[in-house]
Amino acid sequence: MDNLNNQPPHHVVIVGGGFGGLYAAKALADAPVNITLIDKRNFHLFQPLLYQVATGTLSPADISSPLRSVLSKSKNTQVLMGEVQDIDPQAQKVILKGETIPYDTLILATGAKHSYFGKDQWEDVAPGLKTVEDALEMRRRIFVAFEAAEKETDPAKRRALLTFVIVGGGPTGVELAGAIAELAFHTLKEDFRKIDTSEAQVILLEGLERILPPYSPELSAQAEVSLQRLGVTVKTKTLVTNIEGDIVTTKSGDRVEQIATNTVLWAAGVKASPLGKVLTERTDAELDRAGRVVVEPNLSVKGYANIFVIGDLASFSHQNGKPLPAVAPVAMQQGQYVAKLIQQQFAQKTLPAFNYIDLGSLAVIGQNAAVVDFKFLKFGGFFAWLFWLFVHIYYLIEFDNKLVVMIQWFWNYFTRKRGARLITGEESKAEIISRQLLHKA
Amino acid sequence: MDNLNNQPPHHVVIVGGGFGGLYAAKALADAPVNITLIDKRNFHLFQPLLYQVATGTLSPADISSPLRSVLSKSKNTQVLMGEVQDIDPQAQKVILKGETIPYDTLILATGAKHSYFGKDQWEDVAPGLKTVEDALEMRRRIFVAFEAAEKETDPAKRRALLTFVIVGGGPTGVELAGAIAELAFHTLKEDFRKIDTSEAQVILLEGLERILPPYSPELSAQAEVSLQRLGVTVKTKTLVTNIEGDIVTTKSGDRVEQIATNTVLWAAGVKASPLGKVLTERTDAELDRAGRVVVEPNLSVKGYANIFVIGDLASFSHQNGKPLPAVAPVAMQQGQYVAKLIQQQFAQKTLPAFNYIDLGSLAVIGQNAAVVDFKFLKFGGFFAWLFWLFVHIYYLIEFDNKLVVMIQWFWNYFTRKRGARLITGEESKAEIISRQLLHKA
Repeated sequence: MDNLNNQPPHHVVIVGGGFGGLYAAKALADAPVNITLIDKRNFHLFQPLLYQVATGTLSPADISSPLRSVLSKSKNTQVLMGEVQDIDPQAQKVILKGETIPYDTLILATGAKHSYFGKDQWEDVAPGLKTVEDALEMRRRIFVAFEAAEKETDPAKRRALLTFVIVGGGPTGVELAGAIAELAFHTLKEDFRKIDTSEAQVILLEGLERILPPYSPELSAQAEVSLQRLGVTVKTKTLVTNIEGDIVTTKSGDRVEQIATNTVLWAAGVKASPLGKVLTERTDAELDRAGRVVVEPNLSVKGYANIFVIGDLASFSHQNGKPLPAVAPVAMQQGQYVAKLIQQQFAQKTLPAFNYIDLGSLAVIGQNAAVVDFKFLKFGGFFAWLFWLFVHIYYLIEFDNKLVVMIQWFWNYFTRKRGARLITGEESKAEIISRQLLHKA
Repeated sequence: MDNLNNQPPHHVVIVGGGFGGLYAAKALADAPVNITLIDKRNFHLFQPLLYQVATGTLSPADISSPLRSVLSKSKNTQVLMGEVQDIDPQAQKVILKGETIPYDTLILATGAKHSYFGKDQWEDVAPGLKTVEDALEMRRRIFVAFEAAEKETDPAKRRALLTFVIVGGGPTGVELAGAIAELAFHTLKEDFRKIDTSEAQVILLEGLERILPPYSPELSAQAEVSLQRLGVTVKTKTLVTNIEGDIVTTKSGDRVEQIATNTVLWAAGVKASPLGKVLTERTDAELDRAGRVVVEPNLSVKGYANIFVIGDLASFSHQNGKPLPAVAPVAMQQGQYVAKLIQQQFAQKTLPAFNYIDLGSLAVIGQNAAVVDFKFLKFGGFFAWLFWLFVHIYYLIEFDNKLVVMIQWFWNYFTRKRGARLITGEESKAEIISRQLLHKA
């Protein structure tokens, strides 16, 4: 692994430009290596704010940074837009469509997508939230529902159009429910003439016994109160057993309930990128139940000291026996750790095992409330919201000056307007199918 | 037309929420009428800045205002999202899909879309710029071309990928060419490793003998110099005779030329909305060559004092014998005129014929130059650019506070960054076809 002058520089291939991959690339910007960062998209997406695109506050570009622009000063880094289809660990190559790229060190950071726990037929009726396209599709459905309700004369159909069901009470579900409640009960209140948008129902369903299950019970309770104050109906210990046409069937203990709704949003679960499975076919690596690659204490793959898996694709349970959560801070720290490890290897040194420093969790509930869960400090309400705003803007600004986002937020905050509530895009296949189901029902 | 208390209020139906329709609605906000504004989309689009979305500076929401939000305080106005398919002037009704709406006065303001002068097969290969979706498709093609060039090893193919042809030297074509030149020669310069984006060719084709034909010859000359300084190749008196696969064939006098390119953008012509044709089938109205409805001096339709046509859909040539240009100020003034006329009719008064007050023209050429053509004043360069900026922001702010846009512009100006250069959306049918053609070629 020496970098003698008569050898070509050590080539690090990073697959995925999310938090993990991008932080690894940035941490290696001054290292004596050549880096190729491969991503399907030409931009890094700040996923924690994707729900604000889905609900009409921000535009996709506000929470995205072109990868080439972020890395334009890292002259040792080449960005390649493409999709890795296979890996050859013996030959040390990644295989793209029509192209093969050799590597000395490989970092896999392709993340996760939402999962329907085997009910893949639900995807068309209940879109999830992982990509910009997902967010625009959610935005389209939410605003189309209000437009259709304004035209609908049948009270039952109108009620179904004004009923929004969010499946999953994790941070994304909580944030979506809060934002839709604000839309219906504040932002859109004056804008319609035939419907009263404040008659809308926003229902958040969670299978476990409280929302935000990874947080402390006090904060879960506080978040629930905040959501209820915003007008959200929170149903915990409630499982979705079926979604078909315009009916969501739930089960809570022995009680089976049916909710008539035209808008179901999925925030219930994720599944690791299929590249994990590819890796298990080529190496002795194993997957955990969520499809994530079980990694060694230094984030490498069993038997391959030069292949690392980081972020949502990795299952790291050496710290306390259970896998680390699939959140941005874990991915960032892992990216930086692997970058440091590679540089240490040049100096014939090793690093102690990866150790995640948990700085706490944050979730926002509407425009004035959030919950902050630090080890040493837990708080909610308006100050938590301000803190949430500060942290998110801090990270956004790191890549690209997103001053505009801050101004947009302040503007939205004082006016309660939503400038980005455009209904765009053609009616998708999913929508057509879901309408067909709806007409059959 | 009296509005006695025992009669329902006079019902004005406005079809189209562009500059004409929206200005008419706003001017009638305090009149004793009920208004229904019908539009296919839920937002008003500030079309003059659409090219900035197509080239990655602004996001669609930055130049759009939700119609309901703009009109939320006009309590006499109902916004309806829908598409008018037919008109019944005898029964005084407009016919939508599954719905019929009666009117007392009808204002048609459905504008125009781009036209290929009978060569509709060019649409797939050379997209035009009228809708948000058009702009995002152009943006996708422009940025995909650079990405594909970075991967391409064949020099001829790479050159075609880095060649951008803009057909049409009107304001849109000039603005697009200037913005793409800035992308290639400034913004993206540091971002690629294998290609030198400054080797790109940006070619602007115009059939007439100078670009910006409606402007004065001095300003056309000045605009051409500014474009050349930016690196654009301007070809006047050059007609496009064929676009097929990756070859644009042009004819200039007797000289036939072929340009190999993967990106052709259409800015050459418009055709009025098909509602004009519907109107000619139901009334004695006539269309001009561009498909626009020939209107009476008061903008009404021949034989129907209660049907008005305004904006890009109207052909008004009572002022100087030739039809008024299809620009926003004409539509705005016509909308306000009709609103006033309707109110005068309540008072049993009439108005003199519509008279367009031409305040001049503006076009921008890249980030530091523009041309301003007033009757009393013509100028170009940096001050024209500042003036252009001021005028556009003034109109944007009128509807919705687009302070954010101004900040975005200043930011872009100083950094020369483009934050909105995301490649989003699925590969469209058009793109697939154009690629198939390309592979065949």
